[in-house]
Amino acid sequence: MKYPLSPDVKPEFCTTGSFMRLPSSRENAKIAILGMPFDTAASFRVGARFAPQAIRQASMTLFPYHPIHEIYPFDDTNAIDIGDVSVIPHNIHRSYEQIESAVIELMKSGIIPIGLGGDHSVTLATLRAAAKIYGPVALIQFDSHTDTWDTYYDEKYWHGSPFIRAHEEGLLQSDKVFQIGIRGTLNHPGDIQASYDLGYQVITTQDLKKRGIKDVVREVKEKIGDTPCFLTFDIDFVDPSFAPGTGTLEVGGFTSFETLELVRSLTEFHFIGFDLVEVLPPYDPTQITSLLAATLVHEFASLIALKEKEKKDRPING
Amino acid sequence: MKYPLSPDVKPEFCTTGSFMRLPSSRENAKIAILGMPFDTAASFRVGARFAPQAIRQASMTLFPYHPIHEIYPFDDTNAIDIGDVSVIPHNIHRSYEQIESAVIELMKSGIIPIGLGGDHSVTLATLRAAAKIYGPVALIQFDSHTDTWDTYYDEKYWHGSPFIRAHEEGLLQSDKVFQIGIRGTLNHPGDIQASYDLGYQVITTQDLKKRGIKDVVREVKEKIGDTPCFLTFDIDFVDPSFAPGTGTLEVGGFTSFETLELVRSLTEFHFIGFDLVEVLPPYDPTQITSLLAATLVHEFASLIALKEKEKKDRPING
Amino acid sequence: MKYPLSPDVKPEFCTTGSFMRLPSSRENAKIAILGMPFDTAASFRVGARFAPQAIRQASMTLFPYHPIHEIYPFDDTNAIDIGDVSVIPHNIHRSYEQIESAVIELMKSGIIPIGLGGDHSVTLATLRAAAKIYGPVALIQFDSHTDTWDTYYDEKYWHGSPFIRAHEEGLLQSDKVFQIGIRGTLNHPGDIQASYDLGYQVITTQDLKKRGIKDVVREVKEKIGDTPCFLTFDIDFVDPSFAPGTGTLEVGGFTSFETLELVRSLTEFHFIGFDLVEVLPPYDPTQITSLLAATLVHEFASLIALKEKEKKDRPING
Amino acid sequence: MKYPLSPDVKPEFCTTGSFMRLPSSRENAKIAILGMPFDTAASFRVGARFAPQAIRQASMTLFPYHPIHEIYPFDDTNAIDIGDVSVIPHNIHRSYEQIESAVIELMKSGIIPIGLGGDHSVTLATLRAAAKIYGPVALIQFDSHTDTWDTYYDEKYWHGSPFIRAHEEGLLQSDKVFQIGIRGTLNHPGDIQASYDLGYQVITTQDLKKRGIKDVVREVKEKIGDTPCFLTFDIDFVDPSFAPGTGTLEVGGFTSFETLELVRSLTEFHFIGFDLVEVLPPYDPTQITSLLAATLVHEFASLIALKEKEKKDRPING
Amino acid sequence: MKYPLSPDVKPEFCTTGSFMRLPSSRENAKIAILGMPFDTAASFRVGARFAPQAIRQASMTLFPYHPIHEIYPFDDTNAIDIGDVSVIPHNIHRSYEQIESAVIELMKSGIIPIGLGGDHSVTLATLRAAAKIYGPVALIQFDSHTDTWDTYYDEKYWHGSPFIRAHEEGLLQSDKVFQIGIRGTLNHPGDIQASYDLGYQVITTQDLKKRGIKDVVREVKEKIGDTPCFLTFDIDFVDPSFAPGTGTLEVGGFTSFETLELVRSLTEFHFIGFDLVEVLPPYDPTQITSLLAATLVHEFASLIALKEKEKKDRPING
Amino acid sequence: MKYPLSPDVKPEFCTTGSFMRLPSSRENAKIAILGMPFDTAASFRVGARFAPQAIRQASMTLFPYHPIHEIYPFDDTNAIDIGDVSVIPHNIHRSYEQIESAVIELMKSGIIPIGLGGDHSVTLATLRAAAKIYGPVALIQFDSHTDTWDTYYDEKYWHGSPFIRAHEEGLLQSDKVFQIGIRGTLNHPGDIQASYDLGYQVITTQDLKKRGIKDVVREVKEKIGDTPCFLTFDIDFVDPSFAPGTGTLEVGGFTSFETLELVRSLTEFHFIGFDLVEVLPPYDPTQITSLLAATLVHEFASLIALKEKEKKDRPING
Repeated sequence: MKYPLSPDVKPEFCTTGSFMRLPSSRENAKIAILGMPFDTAASFRVGARFAPQAIRQASMTLFPYHPIHEIYPFDDTNAIDIGDVSVIPHNIHRSYEQIESAVIELMKSGIIPIGLGGDHSVTLATLRAAAKIYGPVALIQFDSHTDTWDTYYDEKYWHGSPFIRAHEEGLLQSDKVFQIGIRGTLNHPGDIQASYDLGYQVITTQDLKKRGIKDVVREVKEKIGDTPCFLTFDIDFVDPSFAPGTGTLEVGGFTSFETLELVRSLTEFHFIGFDLVEVLPPYDPTQITSLLAATLVHEFASLIALKEKEKKDRPING
Repeated sequence: MKYPLSPDVKPEFCTTGSFMRLPSSRENAKIAILGMPFDTAASFRVGARFAPQAIRQASMTLFPYHPIHEIYPFDDTNAIDIGDVSVIPHNIHRSYEQIESAVIELMKSGIIPIGLGGDHSVTLATLRAAAKIYGPVALIQFDSHTDTWDTYYDEKYWHGSPFIRAHEEGLLQSDKVFQIGIRGTLNHPGDIQASYDLGYQVITTQDLKKRGIKDVVREVKEKIGDTPCFLTFDIDFVDPSFAPGTGTLEVGGFTSFETLELVRSLTEFHFIGFDLVEVLPPYDPTQITSLLAATLVHEFASLIALKEKEKKDRPING
Repeated sequence: MKYPLSPDVKPEFCTTGSFMRLPSSRENAKIAILGMPFDTAASFRVGARFAPQAIRQASMTLFPYHPIHEIYPFDDTNAIDIGDVSVIPHNIHRSYEQIESAVIELMKSGIIPIGLGGDHSVTLATLRAAAKIYGPVALIQFDSHTDTWDTYYDEKYWHGSPFIRAHEEGLLQSDKVFQIGIRGTLNHPGDIQASYDLGYQVITTQDLKKRGIKDVVREVKEKIGDTPCFLTFDIDFVDPSFAPGTGTLEVGGFTSFETLELVRSLTEFHFIGFDLVEVLPPYDPTQITSLLAATLVHEFASLIALKEKEKKDRPING
Repeated sequence: MKYPLSPDVKPEFCTTGSFMRLPSSRENAKIAILGMPFDTAASFRVGARFAPQAIRQASMTLFPYHPIHEIYPFDDTNAIDIGDVSVIPHNIHRSYEQIESAVIELMKSGIIPIGLGGDHSVTLATLRAAAKIYGPVALIQFDSHTDTWDTYYDEKYWHGSPFIRAHEEGLLQSDKVFQIGIRGTLNHPGDIQASYDLGYQVITTQDLKKRGIKDVVREVKEKIGDTPCFLTFDIDFVDPSFAPGTGTLEVGGFTSFETLELVRSLTEFHFIGFDLVEVLPPYDPTQITSLLAATLVHEFASLIALKEKEKKDRPING
Repeated sequence: MKYPLSPDVKPEFCTTGSFMRLPSSRENAKIAILGMPFDTAASFRVGARFAPQAIRQASMTLFPYHPIHEIYPFDDTNAIDIGDVSVIPHNIHRSYEQIESAVIELMKSGIIPIGLGGDHSVTLATLRAAAKIYGPVALIQFDSHTDTWDTYYDEKYWHGSPFIRAHEEGLLQSDKVFQIGIRGTLNHPGDIQASYDLGYQVITTQDLKKRGIKDVVREVKEKIGDTPCFLTFDIDFVDPSFAPGTGTLEVGGFTSFETLELVRSLTEFHFIGFDLVEVLPPYDPTQITSLLAATLVHEFASLIALKEKEKKDRPING
Repeated sequence: MKYPLSPDVKPEFCTTGSFMRLPSSRENAKIAILGMPFDTAASFRVGARFAPQAIRQASMTLFPYHPIHEIYPFDDTNAIDIGDVSVIPHNIHRSYEQIESAVIELMKSGIIPIGLGGDHSVTLATLRAAAKIYGPVALIQFDSHTDTWDTYYDEKYWHGSPFIRAHEEGLLQSDKVFQIGIRGTLNHPGDIQASYDLGYQVITTQDLKKRGIKDVVREVKEKIGDTPCFLTFDIDFVDPSFAPGTGTLEVGGFTSFETLELVRSLTEFHFIGFDLVEVLPPYDPTQITSLLAATLVHEFASLIALKEKEKKDRPING
């Protein structure tokens, strides 16, 4: 049987609970979707623990083929959905261990993980896994916040600090870290400088709008090249009108059209993993946030499938 | 592994998509949950096609043990969740065939189905299956409407007619049919008489409140005895305050406490199947309707488990 | 054609905008539904101006026949829906004049009005009309508040004062005024005493629960007898669980079942008008408040129809 | 009296239930609004049967004059609202007959219909009517889907197939069919090719954004010229942020500003009918989808009124 | 100025942010409201951190006088609202310390705290404070769960364990602990036995309904007598229909009327503190949960005020 | 202590009820936030009386620093939140007096008010105050409506007339009044002409989109120069997708990104006051409207802070 199940086989509202009704295992899988329903590290609104199931539900309306990239992202990669990592609510470190260990297992098998958060702190656990397999990696972060605040009431591990911790732990190639879409009020003028101090590049919403997608993507590509690269997408990158269901909204963001254009242009990278974080279903009465998240997962998978296809199409001596 | 998965094993928000995270198959199963997401036959509000998944989601908060009946309804019966029947939206007859065939297959294997509708017309398909296995059966129907209207704009098959059709098709033992909880305005005075004309017993909300649960259950038991009996539960039996997410609400209904008392008292019947119909998730913003539905499924399973236990406990020559 | 249109004629979701699709005029009408979408006099939540249309929408699901009273309340009375009075937002007095004049016109033609508020202050305008036609009338008020506060920031006309103003204007027979369902916290101990001082009877929720419906109705009937009587129903009489869409909620109220029992027992009165006030659609996401309101209008109409029938059935020399 | 009723005459929340409080008949009507509350042919979310009434309710906030076109679209055309076609839930063919017959009657009287769906399958019924009056017509379709899938579980008539059926039935001039706004994932690569195979032009969201409105409209005008043309507008053309209340949402769509600009530029066509489909009120908690739909109806009427005015202003020998 | 501000002084929608617009300090305060917005220890739904502000908002509609107890609970006690304890999200122990220290400070000054949770784990912190001031105390717990589970994934401190931890820490007089309203499915048969093993009394919903309020309260009073007693109220004691906004709902609970009757009958105890926990505003679209919670706070304050009054009224040599 | 309280001091969900937890008084305040919860003058949807508290709640997620203007808008100006003006519901004139008097008091002390409406009629009261202090002022009005309708059912004071009344009362320098963002259907062609007749400049949405922000702002600056200027912002300037919670929505408006760009470019004016009106929390289920409003208040404060900073930085003889 081909996966994801096409509505030709079964009406799309007959969900099985998995993303686009993918199986939990099949041979030669290149992509695995996995839930990381951990939200204890959030500082304001909470509820991202329900995001993996909400995104899977929203995925019901997606079809298997990507017409712009001309690819079947899930079938061409034998994608699977392995369910949720067994996180431990209110125990940050044990949850990170669970996530790290699940991601390592996938990466070891040559499977690219697409994690469904959870709050943004789960990315730290994933980066720990990535670094163990690939060494320090490049990072493309879509977000309205830098998440490089040091502590929160002396707590070092929370959803505002993953990218300072990742730096301290040597998980990233600092000059290959791009934080894109930053905007909104700040606690201190130094909040963004903190990212520069770590060696990261910050591209604000204003910068991105002014320079345009092409120019920014070109710069990112020049810097990152073929370095193994992780893509982390905080849904608050997008404007609250398009993604109301998140925890720390910042008005003045991108439209879904602009967001898709941007993600679709990232065809040249060597991605070794993705995550999509900070979707909060209790604040998403029309489910458009979950739908956008599910569509982005489809886009991420397409980026992988394109690369896979390229490999296959490449002449052996190429 | 024991099922349903206890929260000891994995946090309850790590859903697998099935009811209480039951597996889709295991040996010696006595109970099978199956979705019947067909809602084309509804006359007013629509959307019950999303009920099976909503009820499964709501089942996340239920625990495995029933303290009043002192039973593990799902584990003691090796219960399974076989997913959704592949109904065909807007084709009533082909959908009925799918449902009937799925139910027959279960019943043939000695498995008692608990169907998650869908609009109330799905019960007709299930009764067709039941009659093929057991001959005409007894029926206990919880509902605010009799659903014995003949036609709707000359259409014979819709969610207001399953119990007149079932009679015509000889699927029921008419003197063993009880319609309980009937209330609300009528199209014609004859609407309720229609049920009596078929030989059914109608117990209105007023009757039930006046006589009390015990007295009514006693009468039902006297009439039905050990005849194979199907229980169909239209969630609009309950007051809209407790179950707003349904299609044709009638104010002045039962509380959830009264409802549980009533269902818990049905320990003496020979049930050969159940369904729970007319939950409409788009009209259930607080999800309390789905939660009540899931709890009722837990109750239904407990009634089966009690019988199974009784059988086992019975001395061989009993 | 018979009215209200039965779903036999046209599916119930094909609304015409009027209550149960009643016509705006027909011969020998005994009942007229009319909207009074005035809510400027509310002190807390506002939005009752949208109640008439919401109640009409909710009426779509009602059927023409009342099985307990065995009557067609709208057809037996040639009921009509004359639309909304042209109130003037933020001009209390001009709005009252419009309402009063519309009600007088109906009453003069022997038509019993069922007003759909609006905030509770509209009742004052209706009572002015009633008094002009019938002299001072009796009043049965279902409400959690007495609405006999004198002023609000020195404003005499607001939704907390209609029944002190009505008394001052001589519109009521004070010893025949019953305020039923009063509960909740008070501004001052004297708030309820104020009603007694006007000669009214106050029956609190506790009283009614303790004494029971029958006993209270008997007392009311004894006092009011056949005096022309107006029934005003503030939806906050009912518990917020059953009627969340209202302006000044008081927990600890009646269920919809109890409410229907109570209203259905008022068969012996000489009602000359009704209103149903304080439904706030913006606070009613599941529409159960509007449905309950529409059902109560059906009940009110039934009380009139019963009386009409009684008249017809009465032997001429009776 | 002039129609639609201005708020000068009666506050806008005093609705009569019709679109902008239009009468159901008046002399020399050139435009008729009619509801087509049929949604049985939808494949995923359902509930469009409630769209006509929701759009009418939302129309309350619209004013009679269109300042950009400098026209009174409803008064200059003596527009009427004739209510809802009496569709038959779950009987596709009988419902189509009802719709076709209602539209034919209007067109015969020289009245241009503006249909309020309903799911997109209602357009097939309308096109049947149009073809009977005008022969095969041109079509401008705003939509995120082509709706030229052949079958759905072997069902030929559903909301994904009207434009392949219309082609088979010879209702359209294939080279004068434009499908604008197509986007999103597909079931098969051939899904869009299917439209080209029928001779249709597909203009994707990407195309439209790249080329700009003017260029696309110019091309459409060149091809269609003065051929009698039907305009069908599926609200999912617009981004879910602007129109969450629809059945099969596709992120990455147009803003309401862009949409209005586009529709307002269609002044040069010979439109013989319009419809606005796939609004689902149960999924529209803020009612912005219905408001956008109502505003588009206002725009459609303006396009007609402009043409009417042009005719009148034209010198007799012109 | 008298507090809480009466609507005579300022319209009730002019909130100051505190409970019933109480000041943050005044002389001789006997009652202090304080928020405990900690929800990290919840196992399923989260969001109780927003409860204190939601309950304060809902308190806007309450009036100062309690007509049944004939008391001004807040003015007669010089009640204050001291704002929220500065909890540390995701640090359970530091948060408990903050809560404990805030409560101790109040109790030392002879002020009775009414805590607004937060998840139920905050009660442990409060009981630590109470035990330091009063020694082991009696406990009346309204709840649908016993909260005496030992661990959750080896975590000892979570919202399901406060009353086993409190026992281990010697904070309670075990024979004077009553857990009232317990119901719902269980993880293991031993879940309730666990409470009995600690020496607690468990009164299930069924027990309470069968025996009646009076009988149960009498028993509780007999056992507890004048021992300093803490009252903890988990809002899930009430049925989800009356309190949908909570984290772990159990259908089949009490009505708000029954709940008020029960709380109002607790006039004879020596209460040294109260809390109201597990309100989740993100799941409370109609705000009826917060309103019920605010009303219960009014009731708690009345129980204190009655005792204070009694003291004053007592003859000096009494 | 520095204000607004940083989340470093206390978690942001520990609200005190004031805007960004500002104190109600401190020395040398240059900015005061004050609520004007008056909504009786609204013609359609009502509920803006709850806007001040909703905007304050939404302000919880804002941080103190504005990174684009490089300023601490609230701390650099010693901003305060003085609570709500004690308006009188349903008494327009007494409410205006309260507002006027509160604003005069602030302006006399050299404090710039940022008013939180309320419906748009509150601006008239504020302008009366401004004119008393500064003489006739310039006005920049962001709005989709001109609000220069003369009367509404002969009522002169309502939310559609403040800017014709202000003109009659001589409160404005007519040639320095800019109404920006006007769009949508009109009652009469003369509706916009009415503004021109008063000497105002009307810049429609189309104009602004076509000309661009820079060009328009330049023109406005040229005309207004350093004249004391009031900025009034009706949230319906923004598209309903970004601000659904308002009373008279007009589709086809601005995005939040465009809106921020526009407001941020107004650095050159001599603002003497601001208000933000027509937020309706009951229609804002995702709270994005209130969040946008709060963010705009942050922007307004930044414009003031910039000017203050400029003054300080200016050499004494400059």
